[in-house]
Amino acid sequence: MKKVLILMELNSRQREKLEAAGAGADITFSRPELVSEEEIQGANVIIGLPRADMIKASKNLELLQLESAGADAYIVPGVLDEKTRLANATGAYSQAVAEHAFALTLMLQKKLHLYRDEQRAARWRDRGIVGSLRGATVAVVGLGDIGGYYARLVKSMGAYVIGVKRRPGPCPEYVNELMLTGQLDEALPRADVIMSVLPNTVATRYIYTDRSFRLMKNSAIFINCGRGNAVSAQTLYSALKDGQIAAAGIDVAENEPLPEDSPLWGLENLVITPHVSGGHHLPETVERIADICAGNLRSFLAGEPLKNLVDFSTGYRK
Amino acid sequence: MKKVLILMELNSRQREKLEAAGAGADITFSRPELVSEEEIQGANVIIGLPRADMIKASKNLELLQLESAGADAYIVPGVLDEKTRLANATGAYSQAVAEHAFALTLMLQKKLHLYRDEQRAARWRDRGIVGSLRGATVAVVGLGDIGGYYARLVKSMGAYVIGVKRRPGPCPEYVNELMLTGQLDEALPRADVIMSVLPNTVATRYIYTDRSFRLMKNSAIFINCGRGNAVSAQTLYSALKDGQIAAAGIDVAENEPLPEDSPLWGLENLVITPHVSGGHHLPETVERIADICAGNLRSFLAGEPLKNLVDFSTGYRK
Repeated sequence: MKKVLILMELNSRQREKLEAAGAGADITFSRPELVSEEEIQGANVIIGLPRADMIKASKNLELLQLESAGADAYIVPGVLDEKTRLANATGAYSQAVAEHAFALTLMLQKKLHLYRDEQRAARWRDRGIVGSLRGATVAVVGLGDIGGYYARLVKSMGAYVIGVKRRPGPCPEYVNELMLTGQLDEALPRADVIMSVLPNTVATRYIYTDRSFRLMKNSAIFINCGRGNAVSAQTLYSALKDGQIAAAGIDVAENEPLPEDSPLWGLENLVITPHVSGGHHLPETVERIADICAGNLRSFLAGEPLKNLVDFSTGYRK
Repeated sequence: MKKVLILMELNSRQREKLEAAGAGADITFSRPELVSEEEIQGANVIIGLPRADMIKASKNLELLQLESAGADAYIVPGVLDEKTRLANATGAYSQAVAEHAFALTLMLQKKLHLYRDEQRAARWRDRGIVGSLRGATVAVVGLGDIGGYYARLVKSMGAYVIGVKRRPGPCPEYVNELMLTGQLDEALPRADVIMSVLPNTVATRYIYTDRSFRLMKNSAIFINCGRGNAVSAQTLYSALKDGQIAAAGIDVAENEPLPEDSPLWGLENLVITPHVSGGHHLPETVERIADICAGNLRSFLAGEPLKNLVDFSTGYRK
């Protein structure tokens, strides 16, 4: 009998969904902070986000089904045995993260962060000209499920969308123009908004350099809802402090939590949210994660093909 | 020769547009704070926003073309002679105001105002569950150009839209359901978001009472981008303080500027912007105003029908 260890926080209905999918298996519910190394080592399937250092390339582990989209902690050599299959929850987060990025974009365009500051000082003060997505050019860097969802939102407001992705392919209907990651430097100078939602891979680490920000318009807005190490804190700070770009909104930071003494906190033209765009903040997200996990658990036990398998070499969905 | 007095702030291209439209007339450019009462009294056409107390029902004034959508200051008895025609710039502001209201809606749903406050304290702190427009019910109260534009935006994000308007008519394609202002109390309990964009008329003054807010969901978000006296400061304060609704965003206040000692400033679950959603904050708005004014000036001089005429008895476009 397969041993299935479920480490997600679920409501009773979601729990029943997983129990039904795992009928015939030996299911244990626990939490990452409570589970023992013995339980981890004995499991044939783990669903959730176990501590990577407790897995130790366990030979018993046949499937690790993550509840996150990012898989970076588990593709590090030595964490998983080469025979372990790794699946993520890509797709479950697209609505939540894309809407958060969209809200950040509009907040910055309409200067609502500055008006919030004025409000705190009880000041009825006009902060001048605002922007609009209508007629704006938006570069969406990383055109997976989240990037695609965001692209649809900004396009519906009248933006011209440049999608930037790794691999060539047909131009989806929700972008106006497709460019490859290698052409990023050509996209940046044209964009009024750059929304980056890149995963953490060797190729995306520090992909935005000082030069990248110099290539952007001085009026540009930069949004990062992918991984924090796409840009160093120092580079981002300089770009905003020196006015290379107008404003930025980040849900991720090079080091998380962002250290209390980081100079980024104090920048007027930067809005920081504490890695909350995804997670379980939107109730619909948890439903979708539970559906993905239940579907893959059922397929695994039936010996059928799995969805959302992650390619160890790229960190992306296969 | 007709005397035309233009009191708007325009760039040179917009100025030329108006000069071309007024060819053959005697055009003077000035500013409301600089213009003399003699100039006001002598004008046959005024374009802009003259001080209402300087007009004194001038018999010379044949057309007052406002650069605003709201006409409330000019429909007060004694301001305009009954023969003066009054036109507003309705339509020019729809994109700007609707986008501002939309940005406020998303900011509140995603708790970005709370994250801005946390940022100011250098705190990386999770503020919990957020909302979404997808699947939400949005009541748009006031279904003119601005309300219609906003309705399209929220509907494109997946909201179910209840449009609330004065007069019965066919249901436009950008709302799911139409209700009359008299049915407001039936719409309020169903709405996750109430976006109000009512003009200032006798019928809309203090239309939202303590009871209105008690009828709303405790999780509701209230947005006011119309006129501040649709709700008293005291009623709004109590509703937010007592948790009758979750949050509100206002671009208008009962008294403007909002007094420095107003308790509204300090409410965490209220976002205040200083009547900036319209005005000249979005460059496209000024273009559209100039187009409306130039069009009506040309039509007036040619003896042709005017657009955007305001009904003195209601304050609405005829």
